[in-house]
Amino acid sequence: MAFEITNELINNVTLYVENSNDKALNELFEEMHYADIAEVLEEVSFDEAVYIIKLLDSETTSDILIELDETVREKIFEQLTAKEIAEEIEELDTDDAADIIAELPEERQEAVMSQIEDAEHVKEIEELLTYDEDSAGGLMAKELVQVNENWNVLKCVKEMRIQAEEVTRVHSIYVVNDAGQLKGRLSLKDLLVASTRTHISEIYIPKVDAVHVNDSAEDVANIMRKYDLEAIPVIDDNEILLGRITIDDIVDVIKEEADKDYQMAAGLTQDVDSDDSILDLTKARLPWLFLGLVGGIGAFLVMGGFEESFSENAILFFFTPLIAAMAGNVGVQSSAIIVQGLANDDVKGSINNRLLKEMLLAALNGVVLAVFLFLFVWVYEGKIDTAFAISISLVVVIIVAGLIGTFIPLFLNKRGIDPAIATGPFITTSNDIFGILIYFMIAKIILGI
Amino acid sequence: MAFEITNELINNVTLYVENSNDKALNELFEEMHYADIAEVLEEVSFDEAVYIIKLLDSETTSDILIELDETVREKIFEQLTAKEIAEEIEELDTDDAADIIAELPEERQEAVMSQIEDAEHVKEIEELLTYDEDSAGGLMAKELVQVNENWNVLKCVKEMRIQAEEVTRVHSIYVVNDAGQLKGRLSLKDLLVASTRTHISEIYIPKVDAVHVNDSAEDVANIMRKYDLEAIPVIDDNEILLGRITIDDIVDVIKEEADKDYQMAAGLTQDVDSDDSILDLTKARLPWLFLGLVGGIGAFLVMGGFEESFSENAILFFFTPLIAAMAGNVGVQSSAIIVQGLANDDVKGSINNRLLKEMLLAALNGVVLAVFLFLFVWVYEGKIDTAFAISISLVVVIIVAGLIGTFIPLFLNKRGIDPAIATGPFITTSNDIFGILIYFMIAKIILGI
Repeated sequence: MAFEITNELINNVTLYVENSNDKALNELFEEMHYADIAEVLEEVSFDEAVYIIKLLDSETTSDILIELDETVREKIFEQLTAKEIAEEIEELDTDDAADIIAELPEERQEAVMSQIEDAEHVKEIEELLTYDEDSAGGLMAKELVQVNENWNVLKCVKEMRIQAEEVTRVHSIYVVNDAGQLKGRLSLKDLLVASTRTHISEIYIPKVDAVHVNDSAEDVANIMRKYDLEAIPVIDDNEILLGRITIDDIVDVIKEEADKDYQMAAGLTQDVDSDDSILDLTKARLPWLFLGLVGGIGAFLVMGGFEESFSENAILFFFTPLIAAMAGNVGVQSSAIIVQGLANDDVKGSINNRLLKEMLLAALNGVVLAVFLFLFVWVYEGKIDTAFAISISLVVVIIVAGLIGTFIPLFLNKRGIDPAIATGPFITTSNDIFGILIYFMIAKIILGI
Repeated sequence: MAFEITNELINNVTLYVENSNDKALNELFEEMHYADIAEVLEEVSFDEAVYIIKLLDSETTSDILIELDETVREKIFEQLTAKEIAEEIEELDTDDAADIIAELPEERQEAVMSQIEDAEHVKEIEELLTYDEDSAGGLMAKELVQVNENWNVLKCVKEMRIQAEEVTRVHSIYVVNDAGQLKGRLSLKDLLVASTRTHISEIYIPKVDAVHVNDSAEDVANIMRKYDLEAIPVIDDNEILLGRITIDDIVDVIKEEADKDYQMAAGLTQDVDSDDSILDLTKARLPWLFLGLVGGIGAFLVMGGFEESFSENAILFFFTPLIAAMAGNVGVQSSAIIVQGLANDDVKGSINNRLLKEMLLAALNGVVLAVFLFLFVWVYEGKIDTAFAISISLVVVIIVAGLIGTFIPLFLNKRGIDPAIATGPFITTSNDIFGILIYFMIAKIILGI
């Protein structure tokens, strides 16, 4: 059932816009899912996209707008009046509305907010804008179904009907007390079998998972994933029910977190994709490359320092790319395992135990590889002492690289810094230099130069 | 609300097991979520875990077992009889049941299946076992609520009640015809307002997203994420409704796919985590390190080939780690962007356009870096021709590395091979060798040696 954008479809859309054939456009898009329409709008020209957004009713376009790439959305909003944007915002749930308002330039934010008619909606969006976007508060929507523990079933059902109209998917009925504190949840089945005069306090389930409004988005994602939850209520310090987070937003968080870690490991400093401009891609790539360049100059200086010692033994220089590559690879491997463990919240035990384990692991890998390298150098060059010096160095370099790769992410994590920055060029570069330095020092000692 | 395993809790559990204090254990675990109990079982000794599994009723333990690490679960199952395992399986939904059966050694699979009392459950599990685990069929459960378009509302409600007992969360009511073909879905609201004699065919919504049983898990995840679906029905070639997939399973797929790509980029050949044994970790790490070693030997041979040419100009050798690092970094960056784009299904346009864009991008980055390197070498060594040779080489190496990094994942993807294998040590290693080779060739030409 995967939707595919065909050239024919795009050509038709372009043609209809050219001829102002609004009827054909309306018919075409009526049948399509808003996520698919968003894809079409990203393929047609910018003027055509604006034409279509202005044509369709705001109930449809609001859903389309939240699916668009942020850059495309921003450009479209530049062509709309504050009034037109406000109409879109009115159709959206508070969480999406707040996300979109936050993207607008500050002077426009106020202009748009002042045009929104529903005062309650404005107040809720303003509250959501106060939370960090990577926290539970930044993810939650104000739309939810909540009932008071002191209501009877009759009143409860009546109130629920009204509330449910605002909520796309109900998921759970939350129970609060007069102060608004979350007390538990209500099962629809229990509600239906109870008599109309029964008080909610007699039938609700006084146990419900909740997250704090300041919990990080990543923590919320881990909790919802672990407990297989489709929605979770959000509370503040006083246990007041503030909103709820649904699984569709969490799916995006999980995807984005994983993508971000992957990008950092690959040496990309910001969230980019292959369709971004060359300038954006350069901004994401150049800083890490520059780090690599500085690292390479460091390696150059190290090698220059050993030039005289090894002038009779130039073959040692020819193994520096090997040593650097091994140090880099081992560092990336060991740090990736730690970073992923930290992200999944399953790194237990002390740092010392981790380091000890990595040391044993690296030693095991190192010895296997060193035996192979020893045999190659011995057979190829016929110099057993050189072969010995290079191989011993390789083992030590691999152990040190593994320890650095394990220690740095754990250290960064303790300091509250995202450990994912340690898996990319940062660790490769530092391990390159350390590796080459250790290599020459050990070779010098073993060969007695 | 994040659950934390305290030492006190573990000590208590150990003490209760030692004293066979079943009452205390039952009370303790009654209050806990099964995902938390699973965490406790992974912390206590293996014998204690088996004791607890045998103590708790199978309704609870079946949920705990699916949350356990596969290795822990396998070890526990070795201590249970086929009958005991069958009792656990009976409590599980068909998708989890099939996943667990698939993990058992073949001779045990039959023994366990023959002990399951519910013949329908056995048949459904057997069907699910025939599908590839990375396909929609491998993800779906047979439990769902389906009604026939020819039923009237009265019959429909009656049948739904019976079916709903088997289903943890209903999500959607699917409508089929007499042949079992998926025709659409039914809104609960429409059902409730219709008179009891109305036929379902008059009130159902004849539009429903579905996936084919052989669609890949990754495709299903992309569709559910794009359309914000919490459940999706699965059909075969004849549109027969076979089962449904729920969002909680998709969350795991998204997480695993992203983790896998990240691990491949870091040079880990299989799914490992930091708690795995040194042997498992070695198996995951050593193959890529070996590749790096072979690459390093390749670089050694290349350098050896240029030894005589550059014997008067040893400084050129000292820049090989820099050249190799830059080639590796650029290759990883460009391939990561393509791999991520392919995973998210948003790489559009022709390969040639991609390559052209990457060439421009790499050239831009390369020139900026080369200017910096030129100034350094010129000032530090005072040799303008050497500085020129190294800098020009750097630009060419970066462009070639970017093109290789872009081309390989696109090529692998066309061939149906997971492009993620191209982002790790594979591309670093090949770019190292190519980079060094290009570097010396260009330097030789420019310096006229």
